Amino acid sequence: MSDRREYQWPDGKRCAAAFSIDFDGESPFLWRTRANPTPVLGELEQRAFGPRQGIYRILEMLHRLDIQASFFIPGIIAERYPQAVEAIAKDGHEIGLHGYLHEHVQELDADGIEQMILKGKEALERVVGEREFGFRSPAWEMTPETIRALQRHGIRYDSSLMGYDHPYWIDGLPEIPVQWLLDDAIYYRFFGGYAGPPPANPSVVIDTWLQEFEGTKRYGGLFLLTVHSWLSGRGSRIIALEQLLMRLKDDPEVWWATCAEIAEYHRQHMKNGAFQVTTGE
Amino acid sequence: MSDRREYQWPDGKRCAAAFSIDFDGESPFLWRTRANPTPVLGELEQRAFGPRQGIYRILEMLHRLDIQASFFIPGIIAERYPQAVEAIAKDGHEIGLHGYLHEHVQELDADGIEQMILKGKEALERVVGEREFGFRSPAWEMTPETIRALQRHGIRYDSSLMGYDHPYWIDGLPEIPVQWLLDDAIYYRFFGGYAGPPPANPSVVIDTWLQEFEGTKRYGGLFLLTVHSWLSGRGSRIIALEQLLMRLKDDPEVWWATCAEIAEYHRQHMKNGAFQVTTGE
Amino acid sequence: MSDRREYQWPDGKRCAAAFSIDFDGESPFLWRTRANPTPVLGELEQRAFGPRQGIYRILEMLHRLDIQASFFIPGIIAERYPQAVEAIAKDGHEIGLHGYLHEHVQELDADGIEQMILKGKEALERVVGEREFGFRSPAWEMTPETIRALQRHGIRYDSSLMGYDHPYWIDGLPEIPVQWLLDDAIYYRFFGGYAGPPPANPSVVIDTWLQEFEGTKRYGGLFLLTVHSWLSGRGSRIIALEQLLMRLKDDPEVWWATCAEIAEYHRQHMKNGAFQVTTGE
Amino acid sequence: MSDRREYQWPDGKRCAAAFSIDFDGESPFLWRTRANPTPVLGELEQRAFGPRQGIYRILEMLHRLDIQASFFIPGIIAERYPQAVEAIAKDGHEIGLHGYLHEHVQELDADGIEQMILKGKEALERVVGEREFGFRSPAWEMTPETIRALQRHGIRYDSSLMGYDHPYWIDGLPEIPVQWLLDDAIYYRFFGGYAGPPPANPSVVIDTWLQEFEGTKRYGGLFLLTVHSWLSGRGSRIIALEQLLMRLKDDPEVWWATCAEIAEYHRQHMKNGAFQVTTGE
Repeated sequence: MSDRREYQWPDGKRCAAAFSIDFDGESPFLWRTRANPTPVLGELEQRAFGPRQGIYRILEMLHRLDIQASFFIPGIIAERYPQAVEAIAKDGHEIGLHGYLHEHVQELDADGIEQMILKGKEALERVVGEREFGFRSPAWEMTPETIRALQRHGIRYDSSLMGYDHPYWIDGLPEIPVQWLLDDAIYYRFFGGYAGPPPANPSVVIDTWLQEFEGTKRYGGLFLLTVHSWLSGRGSRIIALEQLLMRLKDDPEVWWATCAEIAEYHRQHMKNGAFQVTTGE
Repeated sequence: MSDRREYQWPDGKRCAAAFSIDFDGESPFLWRTRANPTPVLGELEQRAFGPRQGIYRILEMLHRLDIQASFFIPGIIAERYPQAVEAIAKDGHEIGLHGYLHEHVQELDADGIEQMILKGKEALERVVGEREFGFRSPAWEMTPETIRALQRHGIRYDSSLMGYDHPYWIDGLPEIPVQWLLDDAIYYRFFGGYAGPPPANPSVVIDTWLQEFEGTKRYGGLFLLTVHSWLSGRGSRIIALEQLLMRLKDDPEVWWATCAEIAEYHRQHMKNGAFQVTTGE
Repeated sequence: MSDRREYQWPDGKRCAAAFSIDFDGESPFLWRTRANPTPVLGELEQRAFGPRQGIYRILEMLHRLDIQASFFIPGIIAERYPQAVEAIAKDGHEIGLHGYLHEHVQELDADGIEQMILKGKEALERVVGEREFGFRSPAWEMTPETIRALQRHGIRYDSSLMGYDHPYWIDGLPEIPVQWLLDDAIYYRFFGGYAGPPPANPSVVIDTWLQEFEGTKRYGGLFLLTVHSWLSGRGSRIIALEQLLMRLKDDPEVWWATCAEIAEYHRQHMKNGAFQVTTGE
Repeated sequence: MSDRREYQWPDGKRCAAAFSIDFDGESPFLWRTRANPTPVLGELEQRAFGPRQGIYRILEMLHRLDIQASFFIPGIIAERYPQAVEAIAKDGHEIGLHGYLHEHVQELDADGIEQMILKGKEALERVVGEREFGFRSPAWEMTPETIRALQRHGIRYDSSLMGYDHPYWIDGLPEIPVQWLLDDAIYYRFFGGYAGPPPANPSVVIDTWLQEFEGTKRYGGLFLLTVHSWLSGRGSRIIALEQLLMRLKDDPEVWWATCAEIAEYHRQHMKNGAFQVTTGE
């Protein structure tokens, strides 16, 4: 048996929960085809459903449920859909960095990482004004070099890795951990052709998430859900999602917060060297 | 919160529903192997089940449920199975273009697009007579160049993209949007070998579609289902499909229509510049 | 609406059902690695479970349920496991050809097809004596050339294609059609690594098969199930399979028969030119 | 019908059950990238969750349920996480070899196999002291050459193959058979990108395992479950797993044992030549 410490949450809460949106629209397609831009419309139009319709359904749902969420937005999406980003900001949600063109950081050199942070930040600040940002890495990949660059630019936290199921330090930066099983894209994404499984039944996805929520309560971790407006903005999925959130949001044992609030809590209360990872590069 | 407009349907209906059949039989195999025609029979015979048996089961079911559907048919299938296409026309269903040889439009040059439309149209008209057509792109892919060609040939609408979940304009042509999760092929298609997931349980597929129907009602969109006779014509799947359709078809909040009727409604009532997409090529 | 004829079954039965076993053991692995035989044991041992244990469980279950089944056996398996093949024959089940080394017929030239039939037949006859055989193609692939070769060798039928869901003629040979969704391998097969979905839950598989059985009854077709002893011989799967068979076997509307009996019925009663396919090579 | 013998278990037990943990943490990633070590953190951090958090949850659960399990541990994991390995040993669980760097044995030459065994053993013995070991092959692959090497080094058994569903002899070494459907990784593993199915719903996985347990009881085999701390250590999965184990562990027909105990039983009671496989290399 172990004497491993549990993570301590504020006000004696048993665990924490946060709702995040990777609001990336067409940007993953634009990144993938950047060397050979193509006018082929299938995936582009499917993704554009997010900033056109899905994002407003998610905002309306969050308003109704009174949930403050964390939106991670590539710079190019802020340039293409400033109205949507303004609507997000107007409702008081957190806005975080998600690269400029949904860059995969492991494919960038030092200058590319620098540009991604600078351009992503500038594009967002042109719409929502100067502010502090957290970072969610596109495709949830990360490198030690990127962590150092984030710190140089005053980014408050990263939210891309899965090394604990509660916040931790990675090379001195707070990590607000994600988890694949709590991402909607891996269940719902489908682009045609013969590759990959078909979109999952929303009730089954929601049940998987509910089981993980119960697990998070038992072990005192962070339940950080991530959705995409072009996927979970579809009618059947947002209904299922709303049913889940209604069930979870009033649980008295849970601290609901944005990723930024959780990162600041971690900065203030976990200075004592606990839960530290050094990448050892 | 957003003030985004909802799409307005006729007679105060909450949403619309349409049932479409991509009646393509062996044509996707013939397209894929066009450079090296092969006498290998597995996939060919599996697909031929559609025009031999499946299509008649679907017609009989639609007759019984009193549903007018939209059949998109490659020219070569009209040449191979004129009796089936006549049976479709005799029951008063809409007949739409689906290429000549199930061409993937993004692989065609300008002349290839031209030929696909001309040959597809001629083959259909030889069986069902001259008429106006809508277009469903094989493999649901699309290019700006194809949209322009469709307009030059007087095609009334496209039904291949997913940029909204209700009709919209794309480069001036009505788009009657499809959706992967409402396509039977991605759940049921299997050709042997070690690739891809096995065929899904029909009850689960039907439940996924039912959930999306409820979502369509909530958000006032278009529920456009697409099936293939070589897949949904199989006994277990058509029984499940019929159970779904029986449940949906008498819903008083839903406007059931063909894709052509929906496109004409869109042309007449949505001229004011709403829901317009310019591909920007 | 269509006036398409239904298939007529004996004694006014509504539909037919047959249970087949592709008893191929290690042979698909030996075929795949024939150019570079390898001592790597993982897949080999997993497959050998079939002829060591699984086959006897299936025989015992069939005995208990009083079902006569059709076993398709590659020649090399008859050579490696003569005791198992004798046990199958002793219980009075049908024994059919399945190649010699689980050959994929579309990869063979004319002489290879000839050898496959001759060697497969000889190996079986050394164990069970001279007799008439039907043929189930390994991997369920087929070519016109193979059909002609089968006829030259007096093979009574093929059972590898899916062009109807009841027996039909293909180039003059009776075809007793299979169907992917009624094959256990596509749900249960897993060889490690990162490819493909994990093995399915047996209850879900059984439910999918039960739904197809209901569909077969409705449309008057043939419900032809295919299992593999190294997969469905596992404890959980054979229990689920037995529950299904117990439910189906006493249905008074169903004609239970072997593939050979169904083929002979087709030869005698469907001579009038119905349900004929010409491959047109 | 067959007169095949059943495996005989001690004390008239109907079947056996064992719980094993492949405690490999980051080692499969380090093996895969050994030629080009990379600082990319996504998979590395996801896997590190196991030795950081998941392993202690599993130990705590096993303590509570009073189950002795078998932990197979690559040498490098013992070097990186000696505290975790000490905690495993302190609780009296079996500790077995799992290579040094999660080597795939079919990719090793004779010297590589030798080094894998020697280095793996040394690393474990530095933490838990000299002892006898069984061997679980990384990726569950095996070669005749590896079996001979294991015997030369006095390894007591192998647990990597699936040729029976109860213990057997392979080239003279006891084999304690695994089974893919009783491995958590194939249901839960996901590393991002577009490959592979999403993580399964824990309730469905548990139900699949429960069905196999019932099958094991019916046929008198070995129910050998395998989990990974970075996967089944996640909250939802360990709750589901615990519910399963609670249901199984007090079944009076089942002999619960470690893999080592089962191997010793096999050595003592199955000397008579039954259940022998010779690889025939």
